[in-house]
Amino acid sequence: MIRAGIIGATGYTGLELVRLIKRHPAVQLIFATSDSQSGQSLKRVFPSAPELTLISPDQAPLHEVDVVFLCLPHAASASMAQTVLNAGVRVIDLSADFRLRDEKVYQAWYEVPHPAPQLLKEAVYGLTEIFRKELRGARLVANPGCYPTSALLALQPALKAELFNGPIIIDAKSGVSGAGRKPSLTTHYVEVAGNLSPYNIGRVHRHLPEMEQAFSWWSSSPPTLIFSPHLIPAPRGLLSTIYIQLRSGWDERRVHELYQDIYPDEAFIEVLPAGQAATYAHVNYSNRCVIGITVAADTIILTSAIDNLLKGASGQALQNMNVIFELEETYGLL
Amino acid sequence: MIRAGIIGATGYTGLELVRLIKRHPAVQLIFATSDSQSGQSLKRVFPSAPELTLISPDQAPLHEVDVVFLCLPHAASASMAQTVLNAGVRVIDLSADFRLRDEKVYQAWYEVPHPAPQLLKEAVYGLTEIFRKELRGARLVANPGCYPTSALLALQPALKAELFNGPIIIDAKSGVSGAGRKPSLTTHYVEVAGNLSPYNIGRVHRHLPEMEQAFSWWSSSPPTLIFSPHLIPAPRGLLSTIYIQLRSGWDERRVHELYQDIYPDEAFIEVLPAGQAATYAHVNYSNRCVIGITVAADTIILTSAIDNLLKGASGQALQNMNVIFELEETYGLL
Amino acid sequence: MIRAGIIGATGYTGLELVRLIKRHPAVQLIFATSDSQSGQSLKRVFPSAPELTLISPDQAPLHEVDVVFLCLPHAASASMAQTVLNAGVRVIDLSADFRLRDEKVYQAWYEVPHPAPQLLKEAVYGLTEIFRKELRGARLVANPGCYPTSALLALQPALKAELFNGPIIIDAKSGVSGAGRKPSLTTHYVEVAGNLSPYNIGRVHRHLPEMEQAFSWWSSSPPTLIFSPHLIPAPRGLLSTIYIQLRSGWDERRVHELYQDIYPDEAFIEVLPAGQAATYAHVNYSNRCVIGITVAADTIILTSAIDNLLKGASGQALQNMNVIFELEETYGLL
Amino acid sequence: MIRAGIIGATGYTGLELVRLIKRHPAVQLIFATSDSQSGQSLKRVFPSAPELTLISPDQAPLHEVDVVFLCLPHAASASMAQTVLNAGVRVIDLSADFRLRDEKVYQAWYEVPHPAPQLLKEAVYGLTEIFRKELRGARLVANPGCYPTSALLALQPALKAELFNGPIIIDAKSGVSGAGRKPSLTTHYVEVAGNLSPYNIGRVHRHLPEMEQAFSWWSSSPPTLIFSPHLIPAPRGLLSTIYIQLRSGWDERRVHELYQDIYPDEAFIEVLPAGQAATYAHVNYSNRCVIGITVAADTIILTSAIDNLLKGASGQALQNMNVIFELEETYGLL
Repeated sequence: MIRAGIIGATGYTGLELVRLIKRHPAVQLIFATSDSQSGQSLKRVFPSAPELTLISPDQAPLHEVDVVFLCLPHAASASMAQTVLNAGVRVIDLSADFRLRDEKVYQAWYEVPHPAPQLLKEAVYGLTEIFRKELRGARLVANPGCYPTSALLALQPALKAELFNGPIIIDAKSGVSGAGRKPSLTTHYVEVAGNLSPYNIGRVHRHLPEMEQAFSWWSSSPPTLIFSPHLIPAPRGLLSTIYIQLRSGWDERRVHELYQDIYPDEAFIEVLPAGQAATYAHVNYSNRCVIGITVAADTIILTSAIDNLLKGASGQALQNMNVIFELEETYGLL
Repeated sequence: MIRAGIIGATGYTGLELVRLIKRHPAVQLIFATSDSQSGQSLKRVFPSAPELTLISPDQAPLHEVDVVFLCLPHAASASMAQTVLNAGVRVIDLSADFRLRDEKVYQAWYEVPHPAPQLLKEAVYGLTEIFRKELRGARLVANPGCYPTSALLALQPALKAELFNGPIIIDAKSGVSGAGRKPSLTTHYVEVAGNLSPYNIGRVHRHLPEMEQAFSWWSSSPPTLIFSPHLIPAPRGLLSTIYIQLRSGWDERRVHELYQDIYPDEAFIEVLPAGQAATYAHVNYSNRCVIGITVAADTIILTSAIDNLLKGASGQALQNMNVIFELEETYGLL
Repeated sequence: MIRAGIIGATGYTGLELVRLIKRHPAVQLIFATSDSQSGQSLKRVFPSAPELTLISPDQAPLHEVDVVFLCLPHAASASMAQTVLNAGVRVIDLSADFRLRDEKVYQAWYEVPHPAPQLLKEAVYGLTEIFRKELRGARLVANPGCYPTSALLALQPALKAELFNGPIIIDAKSGVSGAGRKPSLTTHYVEVAGNLSPYNIGRVHRHLPEMEQAFSWWSSSPPTLIFSPHLIPAPRGLLSTIYIQLRSGWDERRVHELYQDIYPDEAFIEVLPAGQAATYAHVNYSNRCVIGITVAADTIILTSAIDNLLKGASGQALQNMNVIFELEETYGLL
Repeated sequence: MIRAGIIGATGYTGLELVRLIKRHPAVQLIFATSDSQSGQSLKRVFPSAPELTLISPDQAPLHEVDVVFLCLPHAASASMAQTVLNAGVRVIDLSADFRLRDEKVYQAWYEVPHPAPQLLKEAVYGLTEIFRKELRGARLVANPGCYPTSALLALQPALKAELFNGPIIIDAKSGVSGAGRKPSLTTHYVEVAGNLSPYNIGRVHRHLPEMEQAFSWWSSSPPTLIFSPHLIPAPRGLLSTIYIQLRSGWDERRVHELYQDIYPDEAFIEVLPAGQAATYAHVNYSNRCVIGITVAADTIILTSAIDNLLKGASGQALQNMNVIFELEETYGLL
C-alpha cells in the first residue's frame, strides 16, 4: 500500500487527485492540506468530495507518507518540494516549477528567481508515455502542463521525423477549469457562457517555452512555435488543433504510416483512423489522449484531445506515481 | 429629448440600461459613472458596449439631466437618491432601498437602518402595469426586484380574487446574471455549468418581504409565502412556478375566466392559452412577461417568465421612465 | 463472475451500463445489442465508449448470461422480458413496463395494453434502499423512473409518518439526457441552451402514477400529487424540490428528528444538515441521492438530488444486480 | 416603405430576419412562408417570435413586395430565385446558390447541377463593405456564408497587399445555430454541451471554394487555404483565428500600419488595438465584425468575430437590402 499526501487540495486538480486516490486500490490518502481552509471538511469545499478533514500544510505528517503531490502555485511549489524531499519523500509536482530545465528560462517567463535550482537537474519531465524509463523510481517529477501534454504527445513523432517545414502552429481550446478555481471576471459564468475568447496568443503563454524545450530534445533544428490558446464555454476538456507544413519528400501516405505504429501498446493513447478528428467527447472524464491526423495540401492537421484535469494534470500525476512505484500503469485509472 | 444619467454603470443592469438608452430615440445619455473604473471607456468593461467614458459619481453633472438611474448596492443607493432629488432631478432606483414602505421591515431584512426614511412615503413601487397611474410624474421610483416582478404580475389577479387557500408557494429559477457581476465561487463558470442549486429557500430571501408587502395590498387576508429560488446554468432568464391551492367555490373554468381578461391591452404581458407553460425562450432579450396557467386537482400552477435584466430590472426601469415623462410606454423597448 | 447482457445499448442509459459493467470487477459483459446499429462498434456511437461490437437482439446468446438489462422503450421491453425469463435468465428492466402493478393503470397512462401482464405480480420495484429484501434473488426487477427515485427516497419517511396535510407538490428539474438520445427540436442544443422549460406539469407526466402508487403503499390516506417537471440546460442531473404542508402536531424539530435517523447506514444516501439544500453538484457522476430538509412556516421543503443516468437509471440497476446476486451492494459503484 | 417577403421563415436565419424587419422603421413584412408549417403562427415555431401567420410558398403574393429574402436549402433556392425575379422582384439569397460564380465549381462541391446558371453572372456577392458599389440597385444578391464573412473581412487587406508566404490557415469556431434547426445527433444538447468538435477540416468544407474564389479576386497569386471549422458549445457566435506567414519585407509595424486605416468609416467593422483579440462577446447580438491583429515571429494571427446569424447571415442580408434601396446602411441594425 502506497501512502500519499496532497499539498493544496482545494483547487480543481487537488479535488481530482483526492477522487482518484480514494478509488485507487493500492494507495491510501494520509493527508490533504489547505492554507485557507484547514480544519474544515473537504465536503465544505466541494459538495461531491469524499469525507476528509483538511489540515494546515505545516502540520502535514511527511514521515508517514511515501509520496506527496504538490498542487500549489508556481514558486510556492518549488520551496515545498525541497522540504518534502528532505523528509525522504518522493514528490510529484503539478506546478510549473520543475518543467523548465534552465533556470534562466524559468526566471524570464515566471518573473521570479527559481526557488530551488539545485533540484532542476534531478526532476523528471512526467510525460509518461515518453519518459517512462526515467520515471521509474524517480524522486522528483515535474508533471507537464495541460497544453504541452496534449500537443507533445501528438507532435513527438513529427518532430523526431523532422518532417516539418517552417513554424508549427498550435490553435488550442481549453475548458474553464484550466483557469483554476479562484474567482475572477474571466471565469464568471455570465462572461464565459456563450462566449469564446482567444487569450495570450502568439508567443506569450507560459506553456510555450515548455513545448519548445521538448522540441529541442526531439529535433536537431527545432521549429518555431506559434501558440494560440482559446477559452471555451465548457467546464473541462482540451483540444489542440496543430498545423504543420510538410517538408518535401513527405506526403499523406508517409504521414499515416509514421503515426500508425507510434503508440501501439499504450493504454491511454489512441490514434484515430485517418481523417477522423479528436473531440472533447473522446476523452472527458478519462485519462486518455486521442489523436486525429488529417493531411491536406502539404499540411498536416493534428487534433489531440485530453481531459485537462486528468491526463492534463491529476490523472497523469497518478499515472506517474504508478510508474515510480512500479505498479501496473493503468491501476486506478480505468 | 430626455436627458438621463446612470450612477453605477459597470454591472449587468447598468450595461443593459446603457444599451437601451443608446437605442431609445427620445433619450440622451449624458453621463454614466463608476467608482472603480472612472476615466475608462465602458468598452474596457464590456467588449460589446458602446463608446462611453465613465466618470466618477461625484463628478456627475446632475444639473444637466432630467432623470438618474441608480444601479448601486442597497443602502448606498438611498443616500445617493436624496442627493439627486435635491438637485431637482427624478430618480429611478434599481436597488432594494425604496421597495419596502416600512423602514422597520427594511432594517430587519437588510440589517442596516434605512439611510433615507423620509423618502419612503413618496417612492412609487414601479411595477408598471399595476402602478401606472401613480408613476406618472413621479419623482422617485422603486424599481421592483426581479423575482417580485415575475411573481406579482402573475399573482395579482389571484390575490385580488382571494381564490387561495393556505400558503402560496413560489419555486423560482433564475439565470446567473441575477447574482451580479462581482466574481465569487457561486458564479464561477465551473461551479455553475452543469449544476443547479436551490439557495435561500423557505422564508429567508430578501425578495420575500417585498412580495408579502404586495400581498397585503391586494388581499384582505394575505397568504403566507414560501419562496424557493434556484440558480440555473443560464446567463439570463427568470421563471417562477407558483402553486396556489384553490378555496372552495373555485374551479378550472373560473380560474381561466379570471385570467383571460386580466391584461387585455398590455404590450409587455402575454397570458398563454390554457395549459401552455411559460419558458425563458418566450421572453429572453425582451421586456415581456409571459404567464401560463394550469389547473390540476384544485391547485393552480402559474408559470411566469421574464428576462431578469430587462423586465426584471433595466427594461422595466426604462418603461417606468416612459411613463413618468408621459412618452409612449413601449418607446425604445420593442 | 456474473455474466451480463444489455439489450438496447445505444441510448444514454445503455452507454452508462456498459461503462459501469466494464469497470465492475465481478461482472463480465457478454453482449450488447442494437436494432439499428448491430455489427458496428459501440465506439462509432459514443466516442468515449469501450471497444465492443453491437449485435442484433435476436442474436443475443441468452443462454450464456445470468442477467439481462433491458434498455428498451416501454411495451417493447415487456415482450422481451418474457423471452429472457423463458431462457432462465434474470431481468432488470429500465423501462416503465413493470413499475405499475395494475395493468389498467398502465394502459391508461401508456395507451397500450400491457404486453406481459402475467409478470406484473412477480416484478420487484427496484428502489433499492427500500425494497432490498424483496430484491434478493429476484427474477424480474422494475427499475424505478428517475423522477420517482429522487422523490420517493426523500418522501418515504414523511409518508409513513403521515405528517402531511393536503397535496404534495414536486417541482422537479432534470438535465436533458433524461429526454433520451433521439434527436428532436426539444433536445436541439440551440433550443435548450439558455432556456428553461416546464413540461407536462400538473397531473399529466407518466411518472405521476408511479409515485402515487408508492404513496398508497406507505400511507393509509395517500396525498394527491402535483408534479411539475422542468427541463434544465444541463446534460445530466435531477433535483426534486418538494413541498409538504405539515399537519398539526408536527413542527420543525420533529421533522428533523424524523429524518435524522432515516438512512443511517446507507452508502448512497446522504441527509444534509438542517437548512442545507441538495444540488446537482452533490451527486453528478455518482450513484448517490442527497437530501436536504428545510422547514418554514409549517411547510417542509425537501430537496432531493440524483444523477438521472446513475442513481436514476443505470447505477441503481447495477446496485439492484448486486443485491440480486448477493454481492456487496456498492461493488463497482464507488 | 419597402415591402419585403421571406421564403423559408422557420429556420434560425428566417426568424432573425423576421425580428430585424419588424424592428426596421422603413420595411414592412408582407409575408413569410413555410413549406411544412403554413397556416400556423410563427409563434408556434418560436415562442419569442412576433405574431405572424405563415403561408405556403406558392401562395406568396410576389407582386406585392419589392424584395424577397430566400432562406432555403441550396438548389431549392436557385429555382425559387428565378421565379421571384420573373415577378420583377429583387432577391437576396441567403443560401449558397449564387456565391460561386463558376457553375462547375458549384457542381463539384454541391453535387448537383446548378439550377439557374443563367443568373450567376448577375449575382452580386454581398460582402457589403467590399462590394457596396456593386450592390446599389442590384436585382440578385448572394449573401455570403458565415465563415467567409468573418474570414474575408479580416483577410482582404492582407491578400491585396500580397504579404503572405505559403498557405493561409483558418481555424474557425462556430456556435451551434450555424448547423441549422433540423434536429440531428450532431446538434443534440447532450452531445454538444461540454464537447468541442472539429469537423470537415482540411479542404473539404463547402465554404472553402467560396473563400478561395475571393482570394483569386484580390491576389495575383492566391494562397492555398487550409480551413478547420470547429463546433462550439454556444448557441451563436463565430470566430476565425487566421494564421498567415509573412513574406520577407514585412514586419509587425508594417502589418499594423496596413490594418490601421483599412476600415476607417465602417459602422459595423472595428479593428482592435494591436495585441487585443476578438471574442464572441464583442459581437454577439450585433451586426458587427471585430478584428484583432497579433504578429509573432513572422506570423500574423488575425482573430475575426461575428454573430453568425446577424453579420454572418440575416443582419448582413438586411444591410445589403439597405444598400440596394439606397437607405442609410445602418438603418434598423443598430
